[in-house]
Amino acid sequence: MPARPGDLLAAIETPALVVDLDPFERNLARMAEATRGLRLRPHAKSHKCATIAHAQIARGAVGICCQKTDEALAFVEAGVRDVLVTNEVVEPAKLARLAGAARHATVGVLIDTPAAVASLSRAAAHAGVIVDVYIEVDVGAHRCGVAPGRPALALAEAVVHAPGLRFRGLQAYQGGAQHLREPAARRAAIADAAREARMTRDLIVEAGIACDIVTGAGTGTWQHERDSGVYDELQPGSYVFMDADYGRNIPDATELRFEQSLYVLASVMSTPGRPRTSTRAGRSQGSKRASASVDGGRRAVVTGDTSLQRGRGEYRSAEHEGNPISMPAADRVIVDAGLKAFAFDSGLPLVHGRAGTEYVKASDEHGVLHVTPDASAVTLGERVWLVPGHCDPTVNLYDFLVAVRRGVVEGVWPIEARGALG
Amino acid sequence: MPARPGDLLAAIETPALVVDLDPFERNLARMAEATRGLRLRPHAKSHKCATIAHAQIARGAVGICCQKTDEALAFVEAGVRDVLVTNEVVEPAKLARLAGAARHATVGVLIDTPAAVASLSRAAAHAGVIVDVYIEVDVGAHRCGVAPGRPALALAEAVVHAPGLRFRGLQAYQGGAQHLREPAARRAAIADAAREARMTRDLIVEAGIACDIVTGAGTGTWQHERDSGVYDELQPGSYVFMDADYGRNIPDATELRFEQSLYVLASVMSTPGRPRTSTRAGRSQGSKRASASVDGGRRAVVTGDTSLQRGRGEYRSAEHEGNPISMPAADRVIVDAGLKAFAFDSGLPLVHGRAGTEYVKASDEHGVLHVTPDASAVTLGERVWLVPGHCDPTVNLYDFLVAVRRGVVEGVWPIEARGALG
Repeated sequence: MPARPGDLLAAIETPALVVDLDPFERNLARMAEATRGLRLRPHAKSHKCATIAHAQIARGAVGICCQKTDEALAFVEAGVRDVLVTNEVVEPAKLARLAGAARHATVGVLIDTPAAVASLSRAAAHAGVIVDVYIEVDVGAHRCGVAPGRPALALAEAVVHAPGLRFRGLQAYQGGAQHLREPAARRAAIADAAREARMTRDLIVEAGIACDIVTGAGTGTWQHERDSGVYDELQPGSYVFMDADYGRNIPDATELRFEQSLYVLASVMSTPGRPRTSTRAGRSQGSKRASASVDGGRRAVVTGDTSLQRGRGEYRSAEHEGNPISMPAADRVIVDAGLKAFAFDSGLPLVHGRAGTEYVKASDEHGVLHVTPDASAVTLGERVWLVPGHCDPTVNLYDFLVAVRRGVVEGVWPIEARGALG
Repeated sequence: MPARPGDLLAAIETPALVVDLDPFERNLARMAEATRGLRLRPHAKSHKCATIAHAQIARGAVGICCQKTDEALAFVEAGVRDVLVTNEVVEPAKLARLAGAARHATVGVLIDTPAAVASLSRAAAHAGVIVDVYIEVDVGAHRCGVAPGRPALALAEAVVHAPGLRFRGLQAYQGGAQHLREPAARRAAIADAAREARMTRDLIVEAGIACDIVTGAGTGTWQHERDSGVYDELQPGSYVFMDADYGRNIPDATELRFEQSLYVLASVMSTPGRPRTSTRAGRSQGSKRASASVDGGRRAVVTGDTSLQRGRGEYRSAEHEGNPISMPAADRVIVDAGLKAFAFDSGLPLVHGRAGTEYVKASDEHGVLHVTPDASAVTLGERVWLVPGHCDPTVNLYDFLVAVRRGVVEGVWPIEARGALG
């Protein structure tokens, strides 16, 4: 355990995943309030934490959704009574586990192919349970899902006739819209998605099949789904924490904003602080800050220009082969959080609350911070607050979430579904 | 557990981390043979697995190294009797744990600042143990470490006079050289590093201090350190597994090669397979392969052009806003391994043993494969072998490593130090 309730911040062992309870609770309340009248089913793939799931349900959520069978099992085991796996499940062993969970909770799952109707029906019948089924419709994300319209209707008809299955409605999630930077683009994408979802639902209802729930939406677009008149249920997940990449979405004046509540707390573990370009004689422990430019930092992306063509050596390669005279001096300090403490798919972490300090490079267990001349001096052992680029896969790296309020640890929450890949 | 000994491949639950034992054992033997006469101390941050550490020691390794205090504790608890933490440790609670481990094993750690000498000495004295100390010298990686020469000597002198500490030598790891693509660049970087290490060791020895071990090296350069006449001990880690990014290093005819032994085994969970650009009437389950170009795949990098400027929505944004007529048809299948099943800092996973199939895009729990017209048809539930971009942080996502030999599971090895961040 990285901390104990009652600890002050200085006692938290780093790197630690920390949630700041005041903004976190405001985020929960804001979403609960803004979705009143619709079903809110927050996505638990973001937090994987039963304590948070129960807090969401206590504020009116109908249950949670998750992406993996073993996530669903972890939440059911922790007492959540309504879980939707917003994903297709293929392997028979997983279908059996999922059906088993339906003995203790309302369990739903997606289907996007006729073959899955038969296998899921067998698993449900074998366990003696009813499993809720939603047809996944591809409303623009181009990932899983059947085409809107007749293909979805054909599947709904198959589900209705399958023993052990209860057809509940449509999953119409436009994942590709969540991180469109321009508000107008997000709005337009969800308008398209809602139109496809409505058309599909109408076709199913006209065929005499009840289609009670159209579900979907994420933190980047949920207001548009809410206001569409089509969606009955909303699945935002990241709003509880937020992250650097959601922070890059350009807001619209009409959009409700959520606050950053998730951090990785890291410690400064080394302050080498000598200029790189100096001669041997000049190599000393002095001069922690010199003339490194912002460009020097900007080049320091972990994956290079494209992840396919440049590997983890490329930045260092350019550094090594470059003309040392033209290189910025090494205004760097090293923190104890690197590639195993953050997911880097959505960019580098951002330094919070420390002007003139930038996280510019990562290796497995180290992060290199660039400190500008006007920043306050960095001390060995100093704590640094870092905002993850992408919250979901970062949370998945930790066993515990340290919940703090105004500088005091209030709880240490197990991340029960951490590593639940199956 | 994702599998049991004796299982056939079809019984492994996916996504699973799999090691192919034949190439894995050849890698172990090849390195043991090639480093005979020097001390081999393989880096366990790559595998975090006590079974592998013991296999390395059984083949002659003097012990292992790791990067974190809690990794060291996990290995000592699993019976490893010689562990070097190739990193600085600052927090007093960690120093106390590390000193405690020195009651059961030979434990070493790095120092790069005078303040650490005092705090480590206190922890060792308090535990009643001797801790081995290596001075980290910055030989070109520009991460932690003191400058070569006099700053290192000054630290060695402080260590020699500190109770509870035994000065053992120098850590001279040139991490930045491991992924330089050109063999001549790797060779030159290690020539520089070895010169700095030699000069520093000579200075310390001339001052009357024994400096028995110069240690360092990694999988990208270890032959150069071995042949330098300076290094006494080598620390390669990734050679046991290899990964896609090490595969992008251009080999030299003189360099010993290692085989890929690590895979993520994934399953096809959805085969939407209809052309994206078709009209509603044309939307069917047919036509799994059409005219998607390689360019279509190449654009699908996860992080965009630079991780700082483009977020996880950008690829989808371009797709969404592009002219649908000019877009390639959707020759895609979806596998169950995404951002939580791989580290993406060094690029996307590579598909192994399936011609015409490319992993082009990831979301949290999904991977999108592009399948060319000449590839064999993909079936729902089919297993796909994927080579991680970067082995170390990918291994850290899993609790177990499934060891297979010619299609049969031989063991399921716990990854004891998974998530040992502290």
